[in-house]
Amino acid sequence: MAEPSRLEQLERRVRELEEELARERGGGGRRARIESMSPEVTDSNPYSRLMALKRMGIVKDYEKIRTFTVAVVGVGGVGSVTAEMLTRCGIGKLLLFDYDKVELANMNRLFFQPHQAGLSKVQAAEHTLRNINPDVQFEVHNYNITTLDNFEHFMDRISNGALEEGQPVDLVLSCVDNFEARMAINTACNELGQIWMESGVSENAVSGHIQLIIPGESACFACAPPLVVAANIDEKTLKREGVCAASLPTTMGVVAGILVQNVLKYLLNFGTVSYYLGYNAMQDFFPTMSMKPNPQCSDQNCRKQQENYKKREAAQPKQEVIEQKEEIVHEDNDWGIELVSEISEDELKAASGPVLELPEGITVAYTIPNKEENLVTEETVAESEESLEELMAKMRNM
Amino acid sequence: MAEPSRLEQLERRVRELEEELARERGGGGRRARIESMSPEVTDSNPYSRLMALKRMGIVKDYEKIRTFTVAVVGVGGVGSVTAEMLTRCGIGKLLLFDYDKVELANMNRLFFQPHQAGLSKVQAAEHTLRNINPDVQFEVHNYNITTLDNFEHFMDRISNGALEEGQPVDLVLSCVDNFEARMAINTACNELGQIWMESGVSENAVSGHIQLIIPGESACFACAPPLVVAANIDEKTLKREGVCAASLPTTMGVVAGILVQNVLKYLLNFGTVSYYLGYNAMQDFFPTMSMKPNPQCSDQNCRKQQENYKKREAAQPKQEVIEQKEEIVHEDNDWGIELVSEISEDELKAASGPVLELPEGITVAYTIPNKEENLVTEETVAESEESLEELMAKMRNM
Repeated sequence: MAEPSRLEQLERRVRELEEELARERGGGGRRARIESMSPEVTDSNPYSRLMALKRMGIVKDYEKIRTFTVAVVGVGGVGSVTAEMLTRCGIGKLLLFDYDKVELANMNRLFFQPHQAGLSKVQAAEHTLRNINPDVQFEVHNYNITTLDNFEHFMDRISNGALEEGQPVDLVLSCVDNFEARMAINTACNELGQIWMESGVSENAVSGHIQLIIPGESACFACAPPLVVAANIDEKTLKREGVCAASLPTTMGVVAGILVQNVLKYLLNFGTVSYYLGYNAMQDFFPTMSMKPNPQCSDQNCRKQQENYKKREAAQPKQEVIEQKEEIVHEDNDWGIELVSEISEDELKAASGPVLELPEGITVAYTIPNKEENLVTEETVAESEESLEELMAKMRNM
Repeated sequence: MAEPSRLEQLERRVRELEEELARERGGGGRRARIESMSPEVTDSNPYSRLMALKRMGIVKDYEKIRTFTVAVVGVGGVGSVTAEMLTRCGIGKLLLFDYDKVELANMNRLFFQPHQAGLSKVQAAEHTLRNINPDVQFEVHNYNITTLDNFEHFMDRISNGALEEGQPVDLVLSCVDNFEARMAINTACNELGQIWMESGVSENAVSGHIQLIIPGESACFACAPPLVVAANIDEKTLKREGVCAASLPTTMGVVAGILVQNVLKYLLNFGTVSYYLGYNAMQDFFPTMSMKPNPQCSDQNCRKQQENYKKREAAQPKQEVIEQKEEIVHEDNDWGIELVSEISEDELKAASGPVLELPEGITVAYTIPNKEENLVTEETVAESEESLEELMAKMRNM
């Protein structure tokens, strides 16, 4: 086998780089916009393999993807790949929210490249994604959604930022790595009645999950402690201060993949949309479940959405678009939050009563003490060596 | 060898152009090489989140990743993402094999970008991957492994292409989209006793699988028809002539993710390595199983490896590194290959006898007629409207 000589290799490399630089400067290497999706099977058609989903009998009307707007909150290990998948699928419009910068420490996940270090994540992502698919519209916001001003702006964009300005987005995807941002998305979506999907990856990098939340119909993030996939090792999903979480491109790629697959199934109406799908990488175990909302949820907008849902259900008795597999009913618990290093079956029973009926392999990220038992037990405090107040303060900082 | 001055000029020009391009893109350029992996938690350490796997108790010796060489055959929708994940994880050396060019029609999968259209896949991949992680060594081969000359060269590189030249690679990954290439990899690995993993995605884009093959210990690709995940719709995994397969970045991303996760677990010795893991995207169903080799396998090297394995087992009675969950025993069938458009339970029974004990959701890509029943039944021929000879010819072209 004749290998190209070093000289030939270098000459080729110089030509490549010159072309790349020219494209980067002139934008000439970008592909032209395409007015409408064609099923034509040619090498130059970026949509032929997607439109083939129609011929294969999987999706009735693939072109409809162009009418949808999705907001991605958090453009990190999961969010960036999520945005890339949606871009390559030809989504109509993407709204990206993040306030972080690209760092070399992110290079163990897909998407960002070392030359982007120092750029804001949304700016770097927009640049790459526009090059990949100029047919997609992008709107990026380089801010933290949890501050008061930004939260209001976030709410406004979710409500009005669709392809047709003034219309709400079709779906919000939570790809954030902390509790406060998840709660902000939850609050916004409950108030707006906005359907969203949550995603998460454990700190030890070997488990993750996705969850579909339809306000009023399925449990919101305030209805119950967030559910995580047990890896049978000491772990917490929620990011703690001072801890450098491990991460793997594999786990993040799988979670982004099952998230966007669920988005496509939901938007294009094929297959079974999952309410909860977990991923335990150590055992290759993928638990599924679904959860009813908590009638005593601490979020008043969740309770309001539950009333609305009941009314809609009563008016339309035969609405069963997405089938619920299992039902987990929650009872009244107006709770404080307790962080424990590992949650035993007994602690779970003592803490949150009927929330227990979780499928094998799924557990909660933290437990809810019973009202009567008055906060934390001695043993648990001793275990964590911190007061509840300290823990609550930590949770707020997560 | 050309005159050094020209070489030096070109090398300088490449450096200049790379710097210029990096500036144009607004970032800091390529990162410098890193001599050894550090667990230090800083924004500039690309390995901190991987080394954290040690602190989290998941992996004992993460740095060992740098000693491994993996060959990826097929750098398409699954192979390119597989190579990127391994690169970002800091694998020692990657060998890439493909003979295809990047096309705009590939843009519905991750990794390649429109400006790379027209370049060979291995060349484009090497360029991107080197930028992402200059610590990884790359060796790329732009050829079809199934031609006689190339197959010999492929065998030679598998046997000698490790970090230390002359040593075999640690793992071969099949990320190809056709039957002939899979059989070529199978033949090579049986002859060399080379452990490999196979991956596949269905033509309708909504199912996929990975499979670990340890010659002599688990079923090879010639022991039994390749197993695929049933999507309960008309489908075939193996690419047919004249059919434009559908594909999705989601399914390909998930398959690449579970493949590389299995590679990491196998190489770094954590969790449970899966012998077979399927993905049914329509129902979010992930069947697992394992399969013993067929003592009457048509590949003589497989039969030889089975004998070797038995001898090793006898010498070491307590070797149970990877636990087998289920065992499926095959009986003697010296078979022709039959393509059918959908395989019913009855056809399966009639065709291949005891191969039947497949877990729910897994089926075979084609069936094996019983020797006695003498080839194809009338009904099946009518269904496919082609003779066995025609089908066999098609299979060879796949």
